[in-house]
Amino acid sequence: MVAPTDSDKRAYFLSLEGSRDGHSIPLAELLERLRFNERGLAPVITQDAMNGEVLMLAWVNEEALTQTLRSGQMTYFSRSRNKLWVKGETSGHTQKVVDVRIDCDGDALLCRVIQEGAACHTERRSCFYVQTQPEADSAQINSSLSLDALASKEP
Amino acid sequence: MVAPTDSDKRAYFLSLEGSRDGHSIPLAELLERLRFNERGLAPVITQDAMNGEVLMLAWVNEEALTQTLRSGQMTYFSRSRNKLWVKGETSGHTQKVVDVRIDCDGDALLCRVIQEGAACHTERRSCFYVQTQPEADSAQINSSLSLDALASKEP
Repeated sequence: MVAPTDSDKRAYFLSLEGSRDGHSIPLAELLERLRFNERGLAPVITQDAMNGEVLMLAWVNEEALTQTLRSGQMTYFSRSRNKLWVKGETSGHTQKVVDVRIDCDGDALLCRVIQEGAACHTERRSCFYVQTQPEADSAQINSSLSLDALASKEP
Repeated sequence: MVAPTDSDKRAYFLSLEGSRDGHSIPLAELLERLRFNERGLAPVITQDAMNGEVLMLAWVNEEALTQTLRSGQMTYFSRSRNKLWVKGETSGHTQKVVDVRIDCDGDALLCRVIQEGAACHTERRSCFYVQTQPEADSAQINSSLSLDALASKEP
């Protein structure tokens, strides 16, 4: 079989748009049509499955995604080290995969995980600890992803 | 002033790692050091501020981010149309920005928003409606981001 072109891949995801909840798709068919970028990578949002906190954004290539799905442990492609990266293999801060989701145009992933310890190399729970708001002229370090403080600022 | 190199930008985010919660950073200083990619873009995770659902992944350039922060309405850079894209400007499905977060290495953003209607062009709440799990051989259309069904599958 000839490998699908990007145009084929777009058409494939377009064809899924009208499908109802519960419609089943063979995994091999789906994976072959994922739209990795020109470097063979796709962005992955990693979210804490227990409380919904967004933990990090990283990248997978086809091999990393296949290994993630087979092993149930988040495996990324490290752009700086140019190789597969099993999350937590040195730190112990592993991510057990609950589910993997693909977006409507097939070029981004959302993985919901059980996070052991901290997702961030700084030992913070989430990598997204620099925070600002509209119309602010400064940003703050804020390791908490709670929205309580924001909600209380509402008029 | 000479524009910072990528190496300068990495060093800048490294220097923030040890800062404690509450440490304040001038916004202009921070924005100048964001690490947009070779196309001048950075990925943005958009999350529902009310319930934590991840709604979509899209991209900003510097101008889109500046406009987002000034207007308080999510404004992306559309790669397909090659121009700024005020979310909801035609559909009415706007995203009011609650906060904007930057990750530890300064190359990804998390925006928490009040979503009007559906984030996805398919009228689904979230773009991430194709779902699979480790060791599965199929994927399903699943417009709900609830984890209830998954939790009940645990042994």
